[in-house]
Amino acid sequence: MIIYKKNNCMRRKDREMIQSEAIGILQNGEYGILSMCTPTNEGYGVPLNYVFYGNAVYFHCALEGSKLEYLRNNNKVSFCVVGKTKVLPATFGTLYESVIAFGLTSEVDGEDKQDALLQIIMKYSADFVPEGRDYIDKLIGKVRVIRLSVESITGKARV
Amino acid sequence: MIIYKKNNCMRRKDREMIQSEAIGILQNGEYGILSMCTPTNEGYGVPLNYVFYGNAVYFHCALEGSKLEYLRNNNKVSFCVVGKTKVLPATFGTLYESVIAFGLTSEVDGEDKQDALLQIIMKYSADFVPEGRDYIDKLIGKVRVIRLSVESITGKARV
Repeated sequence: MIIYKKNNCMRRKDREMIQSEAIGILQNGEYGILSMCTPTNEGYGVPLNYVFYGNAVYFHCALEGSKLEYLRNNNKVSFCVVGKTKVLPATFGTLYESVIAFGLTSEVDGEDKQDALLQIIMKYSADFVPEGRDYIDKLIGKVRVIRLSVESITGKARV
Repeated sequence: MIIYKKNNCMRRKDREMIQSEAIGILQNGEYGILSMCTPTNEGYGVPLNYVFYGNAVYFHCALEGSKLEYLRNNNKVSFCVVGKTKVLPATFGTLYESVIAFGLTSEVDGEDKQDALLQIIMKYSADFVPEGRDYIDKLIGKVRVIRLSVESITGKARV
């Protein structure tokens, strides 16, 4: 179960959203930014396509790369998804909705890997699932799948 | 001067963009994600409105908060801006353009603070600059302005 943090760090309590709204943004976001600590303790964030189900964020990546190296060194991450935004020029404000999910990453394999790739296809290519299954068969040996087990989320909105 | 990193970590060399394109995305982005390391070495990323000029990203925040606390503990960050994106359902791909800026943050004060707030007004509220100046006068004691001095950037695109 995900803990929905009534974030003590959030200054503007009036801008917190309820958990179901936060989950909705996490489910529907086109991409999110994965924020990691590098081995030399620099903040490092990269944009990723992903899918959220079963209280976890899943994404795929190449067999080797800096992301993987960093996550193997330190798997404590956050994942930020921004929903609708609208600048309000006349009032020097912005409407926005955003969610930050916190948790630990790990590599998944076997059936879990297959499932995650299928869920990604179903999210981004819902009309091409049979073709997507063939694509997975070709791709599966050439990618890694990472699961971010979400322990807590915070949501913030001004709408 | 910003170093444009021909990123050794970037696997797909064919998807690097040229520096001027990367700077353009940084200049025009509506928001970016600031990725930090928390004092307990967790990756932590938050979305921010910002302005980029003079080789630095500027953003404002409340007088106290978790962002400030984390940055005072560790100011080595990255800032990710995503430009246009388009999901290609039939080919299981995505068109995208994204930039990551790396550097150190520090708080700015005095004239630099005033300038940064004015640049933020000019970016987001270009038609309301006189009113924006009045707004800054009221706001300036209630916010902090942080500069991220950008040391290097990477850009990646599939268009």
